[in-house]
Amino acid sequence: MSRVDELVQMLGRQHVLTGEEAVSYTVDWRGRYSGKSLAVVKPGSTEEVAQVVRWCAANKVPMVPQGGNTGLCGGATPDASGAAVVVSLARLNKIRSVDTDNDTMVVEAGCILQSVQQAARDAQRLFPLSLAAEGSCTVGGNLATNAGGTQVLRYGNARDLALGLEVVTAEGEIWHGLRGLRKDNTGYDLRNLYIGSEGTLGIITAATVKLYPLPVAQCTALLALNSIEDAVSVLSAARKGFGAALTGFELIAGGCLQGVVQCYPQQRIPFEGESAGLPWYALLELSDSESAEHARERFETVVGEAIEAGLVLDAVIAENIAQSKSLWHLRESIPLAEKAFGKSIKHDVSIPVSRMADFVRSTNAALQARFPGIEHVIFGHLGDGNLHYNVAKGQACTEDELLARQDAIYELVHDSVHQFGGSISAEHGVGQLKRDALPRYKDPVELAIMHRIKRALDPDGLMNPGKMLAP
Amino acid sequence: MSRVDELVQMLGRQHVLTGEEAVSYTVDWRGRYSGKSLAVVKPGSTEEVAQVVRWCAANKVPMVPQGGNTGLCGGATPDASGAAVVVSLARLNKIRSVDTDNDTMVVEAGCILQSVQQAARDAQRLFPLSLAAEGSCTVGGNLATNAGGTQVLRYGNARDLALGLEVVTAEGEIWHGLRGLRKDNTGYDLRNLYIGSEGTLGIITAATVKLYPLPVAQCTALLALNSIEDAVSVLSAARKGFGAALTGFELIAGGCLQGVVQCYPQQRIPFEGESAGLPWYALLELSDSESAEHARERFETVVGEAIEAGLVLDAVIAENIAQSKSLWHLRESIPLAEKAFGKSIKHDVSIPVSRMADFVRSTNAALQARFPGIEHVIFGHLGDGNLHYNVAKGQACTEDELLARQDAIYELVHDSVHQFGGSISAEHGVGQLKRDALPRYKDPVELAIMHRIKRALDPDGLMNPGKMLAP
Repeated sequence: MSRVDELVQMLGRQHVLTGEEAVSYTVDWRGRYSGKSLAVVKPGSTEEVAQVVRWCAANKVPMVPQGGNTGLCGGATPDASGAAVVVSLARLNKIRSVDTDNDTMVVEAGCILQSVQQAARDAQRLFPLSLAAEGSCTVGGNLATNAGGTQVLRYGNARDLALGLEVVTAEGEIWHGLRGLRKDNTGYDLRNLYIGSEGTLGIITAATVKLYPLPVAQCTALLALNSIEDAVSVLSAARKGFGAALTGFELIAGGCLQGVVQCYPQQRIPFEGESAGLPWYALLELSDSESAEHARERFETVVGEAIEAGLVLDAVIAENIAQSKSLWHLRESIPLAEKAFGKSIKHDVSIPVSRMADFVRSTNAALQARFPGIEHVIFGHLGDGNLHYNVAKGQACTEDELLARQDAIYELVHDSVHQFGGSISAEHGVGQLKRDALPRYKDPVELAIMHRIKRALDPDGLMNPGKMLAP
Repeated sequence: MSRVDELVQMLGRQHVLTGEEAVSYTVDWRGRYSGKSLAVVKPGSTEEVAQVVRWCAANKVPMVPQGGNTGLCGGATPDASGAAVVVSLARLNKIRSVDTDNDTMVVEAGCILQSVQQAARDAQRLFPLSLAAEGSCTVGGNLATNAGGTQVLRYGNARDLALGLEVVTAEGEIWHGLRGLRKDNTGYDLRNLYIGSEGTLGIITAATVKLYPLPVAQCTALLALNSIEDAVSVLSAARKGFGAALTGFELIAGGCLQGVVQCYPQQRIPFEGESAGLPWYALLELSDSESAEHARERFETVVGEAIEAGLVLDAVIAENIAQSKSLWHLRESIPLAEKAFGKSIKHDVSIPVSRMADFVRSTNAALQARFPGIEHVIFGHLGDGNLHYNVAKGQACTEDELLARQDAIYELVHDSVHQFGGSISAEHGVGQLKRDALPRYKDPVELAIMHRIKRALDPDGLMNPGKMLAP
């Protein structure tokens, strides 16, 4: 019996894909990474996942766990050898339980993020993880990569939203760790070890996640600013004035908004005159537990003080939900407009908020010195210290010339990030994309400990090999 | 040269204690655990800690890291062999830096928690970790045990308040991980692995911790309730109505308040008639970013609705800071009053909030069936699902008889906690106290992974041996 036949016997013919059927699972969604697999298997339960893993372990077959296949770093794509089994968690897509008194929910790894959000809303609760791919990414992938998104400022990353896990270990044992407890000091924090480990230590099959009350009202404001320094001061004032009701603080370079309205003429920058052409903007979101009026009134007070202090030059506070949405739409259109102008070199980095202004100034200057005329596309979650610091060709070169300089640009930007005490991957992870950059920037003691843990929990190196850590 | 002489040569005579000088470091503060040491060493810098660890590793000498020696589980007390070196972090007590724009602070492990809180306040910021021992416990000990306390509902445990760590590994290498980043997805979460590991994997020498805005006003209310079920419903309503401004939700059994006023006649339960004799009370704290008036007004609205819904039978909302303090004083006096009535058997447990009422009913009944007349002393952080579920002798037996039943009571209560999906150590840790209970309640796969990690990071078993995990 062939190896594939053994898998078929285990899971049934329709849950073991090979040949053409398997292709969409062996190429990442942006088409940057492509590999081959022995087979793509779709187990239907945690026990079946464990069976698959035990079979792989016995046969020394590498495994590549996969959720919605929406990652940006090639973490869920097998290598070209064709030796690996892709383990799709897609069929583990049940909401197992919702506990409104405990404000928790048990979800399986293959649940689409949007369906988890919806299940929470159906129970009059908020599951706050929210990101661009939410219509197709899975909560298992979110946890494996410790996904970020737009609500991190208030609610944290995926890591902060999980209380318990169910995990299949590299040997195919099941760790039943679906605790719904906010306090549990009975041992090492294995939950956070598996979260963010990108499938290299085991396979997350389910999680107990936190729920929050639905906000009574949300209100949005767009502020026009002179500098990142001023944005940082406004962030500080907003944190003080709004407390935890501040759920979003996005920094946007003026050029990004110009790009959006150039690309999508039906959208507009909601300022007149000078205010429409300033170098920086900030999009703030307030989630209020009282009322829309209260949220607006708070905005008027706190933003008013910032205007008086000369930190904010102009401000638009949304009058209603439609206006809030159109402000967010401007922000969300930036990546699309960026794409419409051609390929760009993207960096998902974090920097201490206090050093953000110096980082941008210094890195912009270094890029211009080395690649004169190149364009900066800068936006991100200032509240989390997370910038999408991207580089476009502008008039400086052709797209091909830009791409030819990709590695040099990566290195220049990441060296600068490192120098400013930042991280070369804020929310997207390591995968294949940044694996070989890691030794350049990671503390060597830390990297050595990571390798020790990898060897301890996956001694045969079969769990998602070649991702995050060099084999 | 003797071993002690080698340590003296390394650190200087005054920083190596033996004999009488060492005694206070080898007995825990409650006098429950006592051991012996080869010496107590007090290194003055991270590099000196690393030197000590390298020396211990080379000589196969066990190490017991110690902060303020305020732990409740014997985690910082050496065993009786006298083989171990106690590594006191007391001299690493500098606030290295405060970054208000990034809302972070770098503190050394030996800083007293209160001095960290004060340094934050001096910078117009809040470091929210707060617990009874804050005048003498150290932030290193807080992190090593993932301390909880009274602000967890809003700000999380010690774990949630740390962004980066500096750690001396079991080999005496230094991991420079003092990142001040809210997003960093470049590898395994070693920070959370060391936090809560009780010194069994390495020694935390410094941390980057999060700061928050100081609340503009705080307001407190005491609610009189019929049942835990009603308390859970009020918690849910409070989370919705106050959002993250709800910073405290303590559940208190009526008997606890009666005990306090009996013990301290200058204190009083602020209710008249029936309301003064109800079975349960809840103490709520609101931290407002607007004003004291706004906080009070919010309390009136939300508590008013709960009264109308029949969930709350009576309520006192503090009119001013003095009244707030006296309400908190009632709560804080419970452990002292408990002690005044004699020794009790203490359980620091967590339970899913939704199962709290059933847990208490069922465990109370089981205890009464087995030990008729025993008294229940129940209070805790309902918002975190954390109960201090204590058992006193009442009229049932003498103190000695109670203590003779200690193991049986532990087992009955912990078995019940386990049955209700809870944890036998919510915030105090494992140490020596609960080490041998762990295998009874911990998922065996999880326990096996813990042992693997221990072996991977401390192959010679020299880091705080016999704590948390059996050697």
